[in-house]
Amino acid sequence: MTQHTPTQLRIGICGLGTVGAGTLRLLEENKETITRRSGCEIVVTHVATRTPKPELCQNVAHSGDDPLALAADPSVDVVVETIGGYDVAFDVIKTALTSGKHVVTANKALIAEKGNELFALAREKAVTLAFESSVAGGIPIIKALREGLAANEIEWLAGIINGTGNFILSEMTANQSQFADVLQEAQELGYAEADPTFDVEGIDAAHKLTIMASIAFGIPLQFDKTYTEGISKVTPDDINYANELGYEVKHLGIARKTESGIEMRVHPTLVAKSRLLANVNGVGNAILVQGDFVGSTLYSGPGAGAEATASAVVADLIDLARQVVAGATFPVYPALGYRDASNDSPVLAIEEIDAEYYLRIPVIDRVGVMAKISNVLQDQEISIEAIIQKEAASNESVPIVILTHRVKEAKLNKAMAALENLEEITGAIMRIRVEPFHGEAT
Amino acid sequence: MTQHTPTQLRIGICGLGTVGAGTLRLLEENKETITRRSGCEIVVTHVATRTPKPELCQNVAHSGDDPLALAADPSVDVVVETIGGYDVAFDVIKTALTSGKHVVTANKALIAEKGNELFALAREKAVTLAFESSVAGGIPIIKALREGLAANEIEWLAGIINGTGNFILSEMTANQSQFADVLQEAQELGYAEADPTFDVEGIDAAHKLTIMASIAFGIPLQFDKTYTEGISKVTPDDINYANELGYEVKHLGIARKTESGIEMRVHPTLVAKSRLLANVNGVGNAILVQGDFVGSTLYSGPGAGAEATASAVVADLIDLARQVVAGATFPVYPALGYRDASNDSPVLAIEEIDAEYYLRIPVIDRVGVMAKISNVLQDQEISIEAIIQKEAASNESVPIVILTHRVKEAKLNKAMAALENLEEITGAIMRIRVEPFHGEAT
Repeated sequence: MTQHTPTQLRIGICGLGTVGAGTLRLLEENKETITRRSGCEIVVTHVATRTPKPELCQNVAHSGDDPLALAADPSVDVVVETIGGYDVAFDVIKTALTSGKHVVTANKALIAEKGNELFALAREKAVTLAFESSVAGGIPIIKALREGLAANEIEWLAGIINGTGNFILSEMTANQSQFADVLQEAQELGYAEADPTFDVEGIDAAHKLTIMASIAFGIPLQFDKTYTEGISKVTPDDINYANELGYEVKHLGIARKTESGIEMRVHPTLVAKSRLLANVNGVGNAILVQGDFVGSTLYSGPGAGAEATASAVVADLIDLARQVVAGATFPVYPALGYRDASNDSPVLAIEEIDAEYYLRIPVIDRVGVMAKISNVLQDQEISIEAIIQKEAASNESVPIVILTHRVKEAKLNKAMAALENLEEITGAIMRIRVEPFHGEAT
Repeated sequence: MTQHTPTQLRIGICGLGTVGAGTLRLLEENKETITRRSGCEIVVTHVATRTPKPELCQNVAHSGDDPLALAADPSVDVVVETIGGYDVAFDVIKTALTSGKHVVTANKALIAEKGNELFALAREKAVTLAFESSVAGGIPIIKALREGLAANEIEWLAGIINGTGNFILSEMTANQSQFADVLQEAQELGYAEADPTFDVEGIDAAHKLTIMASIAFGIPLQFDKTYTEGISKVTPDDINYANELGYEVKHLGIARKTESGIEMRVHPTLVAKSRLLANVNGVGNAILVQGDFVGSTLYSGPGAGAEATASAVVADLIDLARQVVAGATFPVYPALGYRDASNDSPVLAIEEIDAEYYLRIPVIDRVGVMAKISNVLQDQEISIEAIIQKEAASNESVPIVILTHRVKEAKLNKAMAALENLEEITGAIMRIRVEPFHGEAT
């Protein structure tokens, strides 16, 4: 047993914001256990930050403000990038990889949008670029997809992967509140940013979905092909009608392998109440994964926060330490789970997917309106699974709510356009996709 | 980038029962994807079985009936032990490890009861003894505990880790059925064995809990110190009263680190309905883990079955292949998560734990009986959180149901003994522990 045991892995942290500071604190607080688990000490020797926090850095030998200098410093073994954003973070990671250092990042936007280039560089340099913390915070979903479920053909995955959006929908459901009111509440609680676009319009979720889909199906990262729709148009009425039909409304990221290509889409979704996923409330995240042999497994927990995210960053550091201690000469795990990512299945446009739909159609309650709607749907070969029609108080506009059977979205779009041309239809039709999750129940 | 790339990992499977056959089939069906993920081919070259299945083994070069010969064969790199039981399986694993081979096993009983010896041997030989499939079937919970959550001090974990037991309790809840009737149904469906003792008395769950606790807390495997109580005494009435109080009855394995020592216990448990864990029904498994930084994460999915278990066996094989391909000279992951398992925290006897309790006390409905019960509880400093007292039809025996606040079990035992001496108490008191799960809600 020839055991090459380095006594230390020397860490440089770039950025001491929420995640960077949490990482530093975690490495200090759980030092003894981490060393026992890693087989060597994981020591933060360098920090680069624009906002020095001397009280946090008492045991850090080198503090500075130049992350690029840190990334090139030969006395650093691993660079932790917690700066965020695209520009400096990209340069830091590129410099570190080029200098032959391993990198751990929590930067989902950068991985989803620039990951192909960065992973190619890491591969060329035989170093690791780890990113567990970039998806679903403290839930080890990257490890589950890339390693725990590696024996399976992944058929689909579906997740609540934005805590802000899930908090808003949960509150709207619990209190019959309007989106705008709950958003304001979320901002006051610190769950939503001043500019909430990334969260509520699904961009953050699309970044995470892009990364998971790439690992699940062995395809390159293709953020620009991910369909993204936010939750700002969902109303308390929609949630009530969904509840009445046996569903909750969740903002899901869904990736699926079909015969014609890969689906990647983020949108509000009706989920049957009996599913565990429908019962994940508040700022929690949860991902349901369907593999051909394992069936469906669910991973749930805190998707954000300094401490949960730091847990994932340090898990990556421990993994790295264990590989170095074991004498691995290049990364044990391919970054995206495959030695090559040459699967060239096309990503489907949203018009090409097949789905079931919830439609809320505002109509004038006149004799014959239901027949007209039925005819339009029939013209596109759309069959109806369920209808809710409320009585009108007078001859005001009332909603007709319809659940459809499975149909191609292009056909549904044609039907919606034709419906909106009917004189009895008084406004825009609300459409929410329904996800039946093929495969057994979890 | 000096890449030592073996073209093949040669696998020998001992035992072609459910799991062994599933493993063979999975390796064939998903061959291409597995190779892309592993970086080398994983090929079953040898099989040893007492019940030949030629239709399964068309691509296997060497079939025989002597597992010990296979375990010693120098042309095998990894031995998969799916024989089960203690005797032959133990000898096979020991022979394989001694011959310097890696071993993958699904044998929870053997790992829980003889693992300390086997892991020490694997360590001495610098080979891997992998056992993901031994706990919770296809759910990658070993990987989550050992790697994904490795940055955390694990505070506690609690799991539904026996599908048979969960099926029985779910059916009893759904249909108000008696234990014995549902057990018979489970046997007819193939969910329960002809001799169901291992499942319904909690021994199987105790094996799995022993393994998880060892990884979570860095302690040696101590199956003999795990408190084990089955579900056969739970009645539909208990389930109804629990429901009325806001709880479901689940058969949980619970491990917790306290200041005085480690708790390891398997027993029926009241779980608040709002918890995801309370909503895991049927043959599913789920494990909730509380880490100091990550908070609580939940892992749910199929806990048994040929295909789900094979998924975990092959995940271990892919992990091994990736380590070999990366040039690791000894195992990247310590079997139980720690380079040493020297944490000598004592395991607490069940009398030493603190818990909340559900008590169903059969009484003659007489004036003053509640006062007498209250006095007995007060003598042991047990305070009452909730009471259900039903009116008696006549002066028959009626149950009084009590939820207590937190108290040491030794005190509760004294109170129960004193209560059973009261002349108004007409029979044995049913006691079920309540688990409030300290930490945030998932």
